[in-house]
Amino acid sequence: MTAALAELKQRLAEVYDLERALGVLGWDQRTMMPPKGAAARAEASATLAGVAHERFVSDDIGRLLDEVAPLADALDYDSDDASLVRVTRRDWEKERRVPSELTAAWTREAAKAHAAWLEAREANDFGVFLPALRRVHDVALRWAEHMEPGDSPYDAFLDEYEPGMSTAEVKAVFDVLRPELTAIVQEAGEPADHSFLEGEFPRETQQELYEGILRDFGFPEGVVRLDPTVHPFATTFASSDIRLTTRYRPDSLRALWSTMHEAGHGLSYLGIAPELGRSPLYGNASLGLGESQSRTWENLVGRSLAFWRGRFPELQRLFPHLQAVELDDFYRGINRVVATPTRVTADEVTYSLHIILRFELEQELVAGTLALEDLPEAWNARTLEFLGVEVEDDLGGVLQDVHWTRASYGYFPTYALGNVLSVQIWRALEEELGDLDTQLEAGEFGPLYESLRRRIYRHGRKFTPMETLERAIGASEIDPQPYLAYLRSKVAGLQPA
Amino acid sequence: MTAALAELKQRLAEVYDLERALGVLGWDQRTMMPPKGAAARAEASATLAGVAHERFVSDDIGRLLDEVAPLADALDYDSDDASLVRVTRRDWEKERRVPSELTAAWTREAAKAHAAWLEAREANDFGVFLPALRRVHDVALRWAEHMEPGDSPYDAFLDEYEPGMSTAEVKAVFDVLRPELTAIVQEAGEPADHSFLEGEFPRETQQELYEGILRDFGFPEGVVRLDPTVHPFATTFASSDIRLTTRYRPDSLRALWSTMHEAGHGLSYLGIAPELGRSPLYGNASLGLGESQSRTWENLVGRSLAFWRGRFPELQRLFPHLQAVELDDFYRGINRVVATPTRVTADEVTYSLHIILRFELEQELVAGTLALEDLPEAWNARTLEFLGVEVEDDLGGVLQDVHWTRASYGYFPTYALGNVLSVQIWRALEEELGDLDTQLEAGEFGPLYESLRRRIYRHGRKFTPMETLERAIGASEIDPQPYLAYLRSKVAGLQPA
Repeated sequence: MTAALAELKQRLAEVYDLERALGVLGWDQRTMMPPKGAAARAEASATLAGVAHERFVSDDIGRLLDEVAPLADALDYDSDDASLVRVTRRDWEKERRVPSELTAAWTREAAKAHAAWLEAREANDFGVFLPALRRVHDVALRWAEHMEPGDSPYDAFLDEYEPGMSTAEVKAVFDVLRPELTAIVQEAGEPADHSFLEGEFPRETQQELYEGILRDFGFPEGVVRLDPTVHPFATTFASSDIRLTTRYRPDSLRALWSTMHEAGHGLSYLGIAPELGRSPLYGNASLGLGESQSRTWENLVGRSLAFWRGRFPELQRLFPHLQAVELDDFYRGINRVVATPTRVTADEVTYSLHIILRFELEQELVAGTLALEDLPEAWNARTLEFLGVEVEDDLGGVLQDVHWTRASYGYFPTYALGNVLSVQIWRALEEELGDLDTQLEAGEFGPLYESLRRRIYRHGRKFTPMETLERAIGASEIDPQPYLAYLRSKVAGLQPA
Repeated sequence: MTAALAELKQRLAEVYDLERALGVLGWDQRTMMPPKGAAARAEASATLAGVAHERFVSDDIGRLLDEVAPLADALDYDSDDASLVRVTRRDWEKERRVPSELTAAWTREAAKAHAAWLEAREANDFGVFLPALRRVHDVALRWAEHMEPGDSPYDAFLDEYEPGMSTAEVKAVFDVLRPELTAIVQEAGEPADHSFLEGEFPRETQQELYEGILRDFGFPEGVVRLDPTVHPFATTFASSDIRLTTRYRPDSLRALWSTMHEAGHGLSYLGIAPELGRSPLYGNASLGLGESQSRTWENLVGRSLAFWRGRFPELQRLFPHLQAVELDDFYRGINRVVATPTRVTADEVTYSLHIILRFELEQELVAGTLALEDLPEAWNARTLEFLGVEVEDDLGGVLQDVHWTRASYGYFPTYALGNVLSVQIWRALEEELGDLDTQLEAGEFGPLYESLRRRIYRHGRKFTPMETLERAIGASEIDPQPYLAYLRSKVAGLQPA
């Protein structure tokens, strides 16, 4: 039985290698590849994905899982080996449920829908996107039929990103959030000035600043890179090889927070226990938990007054025009609250409203209570209702996000769950570490990272997101109240003196 | 039968994809990877190599090769399909001959020998390298026993790099070269001054220069990258995705010629017929033919007086201290001939002597007529005999090259064959294109590239090196005379007025 476990681990390590190789191809494609290499890269990636999938869903893996089941059952639930068998069994059964014909159809229709979406944006006309969206939507619904039936047809989609979490659980959290967030937006009053975020920000200077922040956050020498790309992301091939990306604009400092966001993802990879390397347990428990950590380092650290009390002088030295800006005004500007129809540039308060809007529309699309052709109208009405702003056109509304080109239902809510979880976890950190503000001001991130590593990062994918939360801070459910209290207090502190 | 051919092509395309993915991992490792990522990368690469090998040597491929054999026999020898079947059959039979246990042992012993070689260089003591060298040497000899027996035991090694070429053929060429080259070194007289190659050469300016040269040589927009690395190389994942590397030193211009060298490799990939993409025919016919093209663009173009007549003013503008140098002196300096004990910095005349020395020693090692422990003594004696210079120590002698850490016998001679072939081919180009000097001076490389593409590059790996040479210039053997005549004439032209 021990031999079977060793063989299982060896086979899973090989699948891991193939998947990470695919990750290298993807990273290269988005940061380095000469543009004309795209067609050849698509073929290489498809082959590699096929080989990795084929080896993972093989009968051999199933046989080994059966063989080691008694051993795993006898082990402590939290042990690495029991977790490996449990998580692998779940992944394996899910992947086996989907005919490979369907996976291929989804990939194909998504590629076409992506092209149609680009055309539709060009034409500023949702109608151009609709036929392709309908096809990828239909494939997604066929896919969901193969999944285990949940309480809601949306559960199957959500489970892809938040294993074990139900639509009802998420809805309960969002139902609390929505009216409160709308109220907080109104409390925020006039948006502060943030014009100083535009100006002269030479790329080399930004890079120097960002790499310094990465060092301070706790990345050791020789394990991380930061490269330019169009749509920033973070990825990892091992906790000793982490790739962050950013988008430098020489006339704006906005990449700073997106870099801290990706750094947060990177730290969550850095902290995974070495024993989980080269196995399916290397990763985050869920997208929401992963996002909670990018939001922690982007917002709770990177938009805090304490952090900037310590770091603003360096910023002023690097970018001299900021010497005319007071710290308080800088803080207000980088935290400016204002409702707009756009998700990606939304502030901490309105961001989750954009998400709840999408969550609701997705559920209706999946349930069939909203027809695809009625999506723009529903989008615009909901935006007015949630955010109090008018959508000008499809480009600024229903066509703004790439996610639905893959019919990736269930993905959006993880962003808002991340916001909520980040503050819920932060409260526990404050109880443990005492005066976090003093540490942030001093640029001492060691205790913060160490606590997060011990509570969350080291577990990798061993547990479901809720199991992880329980182990991290003893909570048995997602509580939106700390997040709302944080936003209320922050918004109050943003009012001009 | 057509179905079998289609299936064969599909399977070979997948093997190609896996091998190129491995290439991306290798490129990333040598240019981008954070240093601590090395261990994880070694595992991922080994897995990918194993999967690619396993899928290539499968019985299925053998069955398909058998099935399509009648079809291939009926086709024109030069057709793409006949060539695909012929070359694949050869590759497949060679790879099948080697037990995977032996391949693994070779990889393992080579890694150890590489580490021992680094230690030996540190200690400047061949004795530190000897035990590990002996082990990898023994594995290599065991490997050779599995190969088809040739006239010489060295043939098996040579065939890895120059398919179909015999040791006797190479020896016949080198036997002509050796005394003549020694004579030409003496004719060269006092080495010219080249101190201007050291000085202030800012990296950004070098990069601008090199990228301009790549454009002029004929790389279209969006298919090539140039990145810094420690040991420069060129690689490709498709003719639409070519990666060149160089080693910038801010105090030296030497990277210029190594960049043109890698550019030559890159052009030979760029010119492969699109129909050969994603198949085993994508590549060079042999290392020697590949090297002939890197040498063409590095030396026949990049060290010619005509090229610099056109380009020297730009160089002087970019690096102002060169304004004090006359074109003639620049030309003499970059072509300076001087015998030293070091291969990698050797000039066009002495370079091949370093190779012939290694070729002879390798044959004796393989035949068992030279014992490994006597290698330093033999090396030093041969260096004195061939080049007229004393070797100071092991570091500057027998420990200078990395190749023997893999016991890669047969690799070295391809360098000198490349030198010889480059000039033999160039003579045919001159007959076709007329006054090449005028084109080089004007920076017009289109006709040159186009002729090389048509004669050589487009064939990829369809033919053996000798078959390719026959199709390229109608020659049935490698002729060292044009190369010798070129060197004689060049050396004569280098004498001060």
